[in-house]
Amino acid sequence: MRIILDVMGADNKPEELIRGAVMAKKEYDNCDITFVGDKEQILAALSKEGENKNDYGIVDCSDFVTMEDDPMSIVNTHASSSMAKALKMVSKGEGDAAISCGNTGALFTGATLIVRRVKSIKRAALGSVLPFGPKGMLLLDSGANVTVTSEHLVQFAYLGSIYMEKVMGIERPRVGLLNNGAEEHKGTPIIVEAHKMLEHAQGINFIGNVEGKDIPFGVCDVLICDGFAGNIALKTTEGVAKFVMKKMKEVFSDGLTAKLAGLLIRKKLYKMKKYFDATEYGGAPFLGLARPVIKAHGNSDANAIKNAIRQAINYCSCGAIEQIASSKENFEAAVKAVSETENKK
Amino acid sequence: MRIILDVMGADNKPEELIRGAVMAKKEYDNCDITFVGDKEQILAALSKEGENKNDYGIVDCSDFVTMEDDPMSIVNTHASSSMAKALKMVSKGEGDAAISCGNTGALFTGATLIVRRVKSIKRAALGSVLPFGPKGMLLLDSGANVTVTSEHLVQFAYLGSIYMEKVMGIERPRVGLLNNGAEEHKGTPIIVEAHKMLEHAQGINFIGNVEGKDIPFGVCDVLICDGFAGNIALKTTEGVAKFVMKKMKEVFSDGLTAKLAGLLIRKKLYKMKKYFDATEYGGAPFLGLARPVIKAHGNSDANAIKNAIRQAINYCSCGAIEQIASSKENFEAAVKAVSETENKK
Repeated sequence: MRIILDVMGADNKPEELIRGAVMAKKEYDNCDITFVGDKEQILAALSKEGENKNDYGIVDCSDFVTMEDDPMSIVNTHASSSMAKALKMVSKGEGDAAISCGNTGALFTGATLIVRRVKSIKRAALGSVLPFGPKGMLLLDSGANVTVTSEHLVQFAYLGSIYMEKVMGIERPRVGLLNNGAEEHKGTPIIVEAHKMLEHAQGINFIGNVEGKDIPFGVCDVLICDGFAGNIALKTTEGVAKFVMKKMKEVFSDGLTAKLAGLLIRKKLYKMKKYFDATEYGGAPFLGLARPVIKAHGNSDANAIKNAIRQAINYCSCGAIEQIASSKENFEAAVKAVSETENKK
Repeated sequence: MRIILDVMGADNKPEELIRGAVMAKKEYDNCDITFVGDKEQILAALSKEGENKNDYGIVDCSDFVTMEDDPMSIVNTHASSSMAKALKMVSKGEGDAAISCGNTGALFTGATLIVRRVKSIKRAALGSVLPFGPKGMLLLDSGANVTVTSEHLVQFAYLGSIYMEKVMGIERPRVGLLNNGAEEHKGTPIIVEAHKMLEHAQGINFIGNVEGKDIPFGVCDVLICDGFAGNIALKTTEGVAKFVMKKMKEVFSDGLTAKLAGLLIRKKLYKMKKYFDATEYGGAPFLGLARPVIKAHGNSDANAIKNAIRQAINYCSCGAIEQIASSKENFEAAVKAVSETENKK
């Protein structure tokens, strides 16, 4: 298994990312790594880690996509960037999965145009795993597709359900539909229609609508939505958690007694802060693509990279993509069932 | 000034609501109250408060809308309910404003169909004031209009801006557009168009797009969105705040030292909990109507009712509705400016 790691365009230096990859290679079986990025920096980092450069693939590349670049730059001005090269290698079978910490929009555009989708999948989607529930909750789509059809939403249900079952080991993942109320008539016409289709969707453990207030309480394993609502839910979660922790800090700074109380439980508070700092955990998988592409956090440290590599290995070896390809029939049956019911009316 | 208070269909008994109204009448100048609801309960509550029943208006009504009733019930099965009667009285000028703690959907439907909109306003909207920033942030629409046009969004900007200026006393309220990114090309086509119109909107202090992560940090005084995204943002805020406080409680229950720390700052923690318990504050105004209608919390206590009455008095006396009616020209100019630019392209 070969993982292609784009080491450029992240918040941290290539050195930190490479350290994570070295850790992963030592810890996991059948884990080969190819680095794409500035060769000098890669060699220096490997040498610092005491590694033999011949144990790794190295693709020299000085151009990279910055966080400010336009998403389309990956196929024009930055078509020779480390990110584009990593995606091309995966597309050509020179690697099994690609990981990048760079510009999300560019990575999504590149993944769709270079790696391409599984044939039957109409839209790829960006999943973010939030730290809620027993094994995390996959929010899908969390920002890539601003407008969707009801059919896209139903495909997201298959993508997410298969991912959480195969990669995260959750049996019959509970799939919820993000909505502005619990009742089935709630939401936009697209969501109302998606709700009906999901009730007919073979292989989907659909639990109905989920409201924003339920998100942190582990009510579902996969939460389906368009990328606009998904982004609002994700970012609001991040913002409010940050705000509450800030207020908490103020409480513990207000006077001597409060400071003493803070000292007494400082380890526990630190643990809690860490929990909320990572409003998402693991890398964000792009789902619906012919090969795994994972967006690791922009500020990933070595440990986060190691985890993203493990996630990529699981994703490659669990058969999720094959199952996604074969979900076509179930998906089409759900769409057909609803259109037939509508016609009868 | 006469405020019509629907005392039925709330989580608390009429007695509690009436107690709040009695407090308001004593505290505020020019404050007359008419209660609509079960006469026996109203008389008993007034007697308990030592009040003279002749100082209040009383409209006897035993039927009421429950939280489970369909929104449309207010104009059919519950057309003679306390809520419907309160709205009809305000519509006929028998009162200056209506307040209800009951079913939000029914109140919105009733307000639109019975009280009606200001002539030039295409859609009424539900505002919720979140406890963020110096004087709170008005989220508009927070759930009434699931789908909107860009013109509706621009009208919401006028409604919200005038409300926060006139009723809440904020000079040149900063208006943000809820979006999935800061750049002006972000969002659905409707939002992109609304963004352009808002840049041309005379009298609107438009600060651009606001992301979910910025919501708690007081970046704007009015946050404009469709009712679907607004509901997601509002409910996610509520859910995450509740979740963090629950986690905090666990921290302070975990061992003797933690319990001691909790004791040391229990007052501060209680204050913080209260802050987040009320993710919204004040009643939620319906904006764009010809007369003020305020949705108080379903579980309002006497104090919340007193505050809602003060809010209603301010709303009636500040000239907001007149200014909303006269914002027509500015609104139309913004729409026209953008359509002319588009035609030139």
